Amino acid sequence: MSSPLWDKGNAEIDARIMRFCAGEDVVLDRQLFLYDIQASKAHVRGLERIELLSEEERDSLLEGLDALAGEFERGEFVLDERFEDGHSAIEAYLTDKLGDVGRKVHTGRSRNDQVLVASRLYLRDTLDELAKHCKRAAEICLERAANDDVPMPGYTHLQRAVPSSTGMWFAAFAEAFIDNARLAKHTRTFVDSNPLGTAAGYGVNLPLDRDGVTDELDFERVQLSPIYAQNSRGKFELQALMALGQALLDVRRLAWDLSLFTTREFSFVELPDRFTTGSSIMPNKRNPDVVELLRASYGVVQGAMAELQSLLSLSSGYHRDLQASKPPVLRAMTRGLDALAIVSELLGALEFDAERMAEAIEPEMYATDRAVELARDGVPFREAYRQVAGAWDELASRTPQQSLDARTSPGGAADLRLDVLRERLANL
Amino acid sequence: MSSPLWDKGNAEIDARIMRFCAGEDVVLDRQLFLYDIQASKAHVRGLERIELLSEEERDSLLEGLDALAGEFERGEFVLDERFEDGHSAIEAYLTDKLGDVGRKVHTGRSRNDQVLVASRLYLRDTLDELAKHCKRAAEICLERAANDDVPMPGYTHLQRAVPSSTGMWFAAFAEAFIDNARLAKHTRTFVDSNPLGTAAGYGVNLPLDRDGVTDELDFERVQLSPIYAQNSRGKFELQALMALGQALLDVRRLAWDLSLFTTREFSFVELPDRFTTGSSIMPNKRNPDVVELLRASYGVVQGAMAELQSLLSLSSGYHRDLQASKPPVLRAMTRGLDALAIVSELLGALEFDAERMAEAIEPEMYATDRAVELARDGVPFREAYRQVAGAWDELASRTPQQSLDARTSPGGAADLRLDVLRERLANL
Amino acid sequence: MSSPLWDKGNAEIDARIMRFCAGEDVVLDRQLFLYDIQASKAHVRGLERIELLSEEERDSLLEGLDALAGEFERGEFVLDERFEDGHSAIEAYLTDKLGDVGRKVHTGRSRNDQVLVASRLYLRDTLDELAKHCKRAAEICLERAANDDVPMPGYTHLQRAVPSSTGMWFAAFAEAFIDNARLAKHTRTFVDSNPLGTAAGYGVNLPLDRDGVTDELDFERVQLSPIYAQNSRGKFELQALMALGQALLDVRRLAWDLSLFTTREFSFVELPDRFTTGSSIMPNKRNPDVVELLRASYGVVQGAMAELQSLLSLSSGYHRDLQASKPPVLRAMTRGLDALAIVSELLGALEFDAERMAEAIEPEMYATDRAVELARDGVPFREAYRQVAGAWDELASRTPQQSLDARTSPGGAADLRLDVLRERLANL
Amino acid sequence: MSSPLWDKGNAEIDARIMRFCAGEDVVLDRQLFLYDIQASKAHVRGLERIELLSEEERDSLLEGLDALAGEFERGEFVLDERFEDGHSAIEAYLTDKLGDVGRKVHTGRSRNDQVLVASRLYLRDTLDELAKHCKRAAEICLERAANDDVPMPGYTHLQRAVPSSTGMWFAAFAEAFIDNARLAKHTRTFVDSNPLGTAAGYGVNLPLDRDGVTDELDFERVQLSPIYAQNSRGKFELQALMALGQALLDVRRLAWDLSLFTTREFSFVELPDRFTTGSSIMPNKRNPDVVELLRASYGVVQGAMAELQSLLSLSSGYHRDLQASKPPVLRAMTRGLDALAIVSELLGALEFDAERMAEAIEPEMYATDRAVELARDGVPFREAYRQVAGAWDELASRTPQQSLDARTSPGGAADLRLDVLRERLANL
Repeated sequence: MSSPLWDKGNAEIDARIMRFCAGEDVVLDRQLFLYDIQASKAHVRGLERIELLSEEERDSLLEGLDALAGEFERGEFVLDERFEDGHSAIEAYLTDKLGDVGRKVHTGRSRNDQVLVASRLYLRDTLDELAKHCKRAAEICLERAANDDVPMPGYTHLQRAVPSSTGMWFAAFAEAFIDNARLAKHTRTFVDSNPLGTAAGYGVNLPLDRDGVTDELDFERVQLSPIYAQNSRGKFELQALMALGQALLDVRRLAWDLSLFTTREFSFVELPDRFTTGSSIMPNKRNPDVVELLRASYGVVQGAMAELQSLLSLSSGYHRDLQASKPPVLRAMTRGLDALAIVSELLGALEFDAERMAEAIEPEMYATDRAVELARDGVPFREAYRQVAGAWDELASRTPQQSLDARTSPGGAADLRLDVLRERLANL
Repeated sequence: MSSPLWDKGNAEIDARIMRFCAGEDVVLDRQLFLYDIQASKAHVRGLERIELLSEEERDSLLEGLDALAGEFERGEFVLDERFEDGHSAIEAYLTDKLGDVGRKVHTGRSRNDQVLVASRLYLRDTLDELAKHCKRAAEICLERAANDDVPMPGYTHLQRAVPSSTGMWFAAFAEAFIDNARLAKHTRTFVDSNPLGTAAGYGVNLPLDRDGVTDELDFERVQLSPIYAQNSRGKFELQALMALGQALLDVRRLAWDLSLFTTREFSFVELPDRFTTGSSIMPNKRNPDVVELLRASYGVVQGAMAELQSLLSLSSGYHRDLQASKPPVLRAMTRGLDALAIVSELLGALEFDAERMAEAIEPEMYATDRAVELARDGVPFREAYRQVAGAWDELASRTPQQSLDARTSPGGAADLRLDVLRERLANL
Repeated sequence: MSSPLWDKGNAEIDARIMRFCAGEDVVLDRQLFLYDIQASKAHVRGLERIELLSEEERDSLLEGLDALAGEFERGEFVLDERFEDGHSAIEAYLTDKLGDVGRKVHTGRSRNDQVLVASRLYLRDTLDELAKHCKRAAEICLERAANDDVPMPGYTHLQRAVPSSTGMWFAAFAEAFIDNARLAKHTRTFVDSNPLGTAAGYGVNLPLDRDGVTDELDFERVQLSPIYAQNSRGKFELQALMALGQALLDVRRLAWDLSLFTTREFSFVELPDRFTTGSSIMPNKRNPDVVELLRASYGVVQGAMAELQSLLSLSSGYHRDLQASKPPVLRAMTRGLDALAIVSELLGALEFDAERMAEAIEPEMYATDRAVELARDGVPFREAYRQVAGAWDELASRTPQQSLDARTSPGGAADLRLDVLRERLANL
Repeated sequence: MSSPLWDKGNAEIDARIMRFCAGEDVVLDRQLFLYDIQASKAHVRGLERIELLSEEERDSLLEGLDALAGEFERGEFVLDERFEDGHSAIEAYLTDKLGDVGRKVHTGRSRNDQVLVASRLYLRDTLDELAKHCKRAAEICLERAANDDVPMPGYTHLQRAVPSSTGMWFAAFAEAFIDNARLAKHTRTFVDSNPLGTAAGYGVNLPLDRDGVTDELDFERVQLSPIYAQNSRGKFELQALMALGQALLDVRRLAWDLSLFTTREFSFVELPDRFTTGSSIMPNKRNPDVVELLRASYGVVQGAMAELQSLLSLSSGYHRDLQASKPPVLRAMTRGLDALAIVSELLGALEFDAERMAEAIEPEMYATDRAVELARDGVPFREAYRQVAGAWDELASRTPQQSLDARTSPGGAADLRLDVLRERLANL
């Protein structure tokens, strides 16, 4: 391993403690490495603008950073336990390659603001991907709501309640994912704040061009306060996880629906083979594992949020505890986005059994329709409710479609307002 | 107790089970009752517009609802176990007062959308109050950053690191609370969606004027999908709790700082007597209980979030489990806002001991300044770092103010950019 | 309100801050009050034994404490906001009644160890009640497993897998609740440690008879270390919540089963009317609300655990944050035990539809039986598995009972070993 | 990749979905692999006893399993993505090596009970290691309490309260870790239940010798019910995490103490260099990173518990969701035990600054002593409390040691009862 940056030549380093301290940090940094290089380039340009680097030094460093990025992407440079972390690796590479010029890259910054800025760039991209997945899911739902609209039973308390439709069902998830995409975008603006230039949490005795660096990295705003930059670690990540989690809560609802709909008892939905697996002991099984793992995905986010929250009981300023925020964030983001990447495909591939669903709509389920009709004709609703209860015979001749066609309020089966949803989606 | 709305005359009601089901629901509904009445008025006007109520009926119902609100506010009408919940109480009151007209109020709605709309109105107000508290805290921090700016030590890992200032400290919390206020506002738009008119989750066979009701209740948008209206229960509340929690995470940081700064060992801050209490056994104690309870407040939100998350593993549509979302939301909002209401006062009342803080700034803490100066003069930073280490004597003549004055990057001690923060605050 | 115990005559008390500090503390203390009195009696007897009280003073105080307990139980003494907390109320009552003798009750103790000992006594009783409920549930399950054993389908992934039986189903919950009862007992011994006599966390300059007090209050052991007594606050409560939660996790499984089994699609189980409720809008509904609220009960415990965990990031010794542990513990224990009190009744009242369940057992579900038979006859299992797949016709003549009768491994349908479970239960 | 066990030759396998399903499962299984082999050997012996395997087949399989274990331990057999999971790898290896005999190993079991039994064996070892670490920490604390007992200030609310001692401080952690070791042992008995032989959750049509297998694997009891075996997945793991977490909560307290004691302001404790690290920007820093990472360790457990709890809202029987319980359990156990392994070393290496601590004990801190003395002499305690308040002069001549010597109650500074603690420890 290369010497730690803070090695002053007198450290006795106990390997086991080092290992405990290091954790998987450097391996996790692989996910942040390119962002770290990107921010380092902006930092280098900023240093030149305030004349702490010459143009030549700047260019050497930029070339070095680009070379490192390339080697890393091609697998030629491996970020591993030789380095304390990704930040150290950058400086070590540049020093190795450029000598003294490399030793200048860390001027005016600390690993504290370095990890913050890399994390923000990562979160921004992640939230963009989240928004993209949500929008894609919404699009497919809108398409299917428009084209695959047949009656199905509606449930409350898992009891058959009133007729519903696949149109209503798809429109529900469309609206959910539109909200989720919007939330992802709002959350992006929340974290879109540049911490680079705050050093170890108290600024630095240089006139860093923070505004210029902020522009170059395309941040919405400068995170001005160095202390707040540190204090927001974990806090911003938590908000990003929340946005991811909201989408996965809807995925969980969706997965529960499909888990039920694909039972033999319901038999409303068939899943393509590629979404199912078999059993090691029971030859007769086709199991909806993908649906179940989608349902389970929220757990990773919930766990990660709890892990972060557990850390965030600290005084102002950096504490090493905060480094422990990295694993849960990276883990949950990766798993969550992997789950969402599959959702659209699943939504597009579902096959509903219209006949089976129609059979599940029983006369009693028109009772509410009837009570409302009586109310419309002047019978006080509570009175109408009592009249209808039990008199199911009168309802036998009704059809699901009639019931749906009468649902004319905005958002109801007869007026899904997919155009409004499409517009909301387009405006994101 | 008045008969449940769904009593068809044949229910055997077991008292103990009823009690388990009811929980404290009706008592909690006191916090939602005026919102429920407000939404009921909009619903009634909407019913008249589609001619399900005559103008006279509408006016009777509106008068009845206003009378109920008045009696409730004056304590003449008590919402208690006589009623299954607040929703039932409204209908019971109107029926008692107006007879058959009262029985019409529930036309076209379910308690399912009734509780949703009342909760949304409640969350909106709550988020407004949250924003208000955050803005107030930010204002005070900005004021104090401008007027009470003296040197204090800056810490990382709770170890003395570099000189900081009370200006930097207050500016940090100013920026934090500005972000929090902004988040509260974003979150408000997220929940600002009208579910009224979606009935039990599948709409209703009436042409309800949902757009009109949405306008009247000043919602940003219609929550179109009835299924999604149900599915968003808990989800929207969770997001609102998150916004509250973010502010309380900064309060927790603040409280930890003060908990340390008020120790005898630090002695940086004195709290006015009204923020402290005594001990039942130790005559010598003045304890910073308020600060500690502020620190603990996040726990209520974290617990409430976990309680909600625990519920949200359900298929689409209403399940009674969702009713259990009410206690944690109301509890956490109340406690959280109570905490925030005190924060501004506390921030305004803190007295710093400038002399004591100055003493705590030792020569070693200028080492970073010196290393950066060397770097500025062309010594590669890593080399400069090694030169400075241990050579503390050379630093003895420096003063905290010199160090702070050199921190000229935006957000640094010499350029706090309070004007930028003030502008951000004004733009919220 | 009576003056705080720590009032030295010079406190400026700000009402709003006082309210924030007090929270609902005194109201919550109603649940601990009799335990506090019980411990106070033991403390008083201990003080007499070391001659800090005369026999007369002891007897006066004991009579006073008994009188207070009686008045409290009869509702004549109301613990409310007049007092800072229950501990203060005891001293105030005794002082009011007995003058100077009353002022002696607090000798050698602090509210810190007073609340600890009252909480431990409360937790012990609570864990006893938990064990009792679990044992009762196990008994009923054992009874029903023995007497109501008919075939039902067994599911994995919610897909029909192999034949199962109501006997297997009830035996599963019997074994679960036996484990849970055992856990409750183990957990009781974990918390069965006497903190009284540790004062504010550093002991007291008196030779308190802690061993005698420990015996009198029937604790298993003395909690020796005063610092650990404080440090274990929240920790012991957390363990008790965990034991409660484990039982409620099984309730959650049970509730999910019943939620599915009572759908129209499954129709395996009918719930007695008293376990269902109706809808305010849909005349046709009977909803399994009780089952759903049982399922939701774990959320209260999970939330409470998270709330506690959020507090427990503190240095040694008492901090006011710890007072915030009271509401979640009392809330979760109350709700959890209320839920468990209903479970036995529910388990006893379920009616299974044997015919419907038999119909749900399809030929394919015998495939595993067949594969195992082939394996028994020497075909390598993986080969047998492949042979059977798809050849469902050969399985058509089998019956559920045959399949169950062949399940002869211990715990299998043909050898439930209820006697072993009964013995485990008896040995608790 | 080898074909999945359930591959019937007609599966279209979509690589991306497969990857989502697989997760890191097979890599995580490396931690369970030897346990899986151990249980497989017991299973094989059991199969021979009921004559499903000949003695020769048994011996071949046992040899094969031993060979696999050896190759795995020596790194010759690598468990990686070629296999669906560790369970499949065992069968694949044996089949490859032994042909048809290998195909027989899975007779009468499912991966469902296979993973359960491997997990239980893993948890048992883990809990043993947990107990061992706790006992070691307790031993060191007892030793230091006996040998390194000097006065130090005692704090409540982080305010100086009364004199304490390093003896009291070490004794507190000794008692805590003794409780934790005991809890680990109790928890071990809770999970010490053999699920092997329950197949996929409904038993199997064979007379498996479950009692024999249970003995061979040294389980306390048979987990009889196949359904409960499935239902206890996650539940048992949660209890084990809780036991780990309890120890880490005490570590968190310890770490907070040390984090404060090592500040310049307190300066009570010095950490050996190997427990500290430096800064990349500040040449003057030595940071207590190890202490901070120990403090953060509880977060991993808390997160893992939340992740598990999030999954456990399911009906009876296996669901693929449950597979997602593996990563958090393995992750938290590994990190938690790594942390505990360092604690003893840290406890042994701390150096207290007796002089500095003595200086921090001020006259006011004897006020409680004085009030109690007055009470002992007959002044009612509340009256004594008021007399002492403010009269600090009278206390100036006292010494810390006098104060400690008077703390004669069991567990107090003058009677730490280390012998009792030693006995408790020995009896574990």
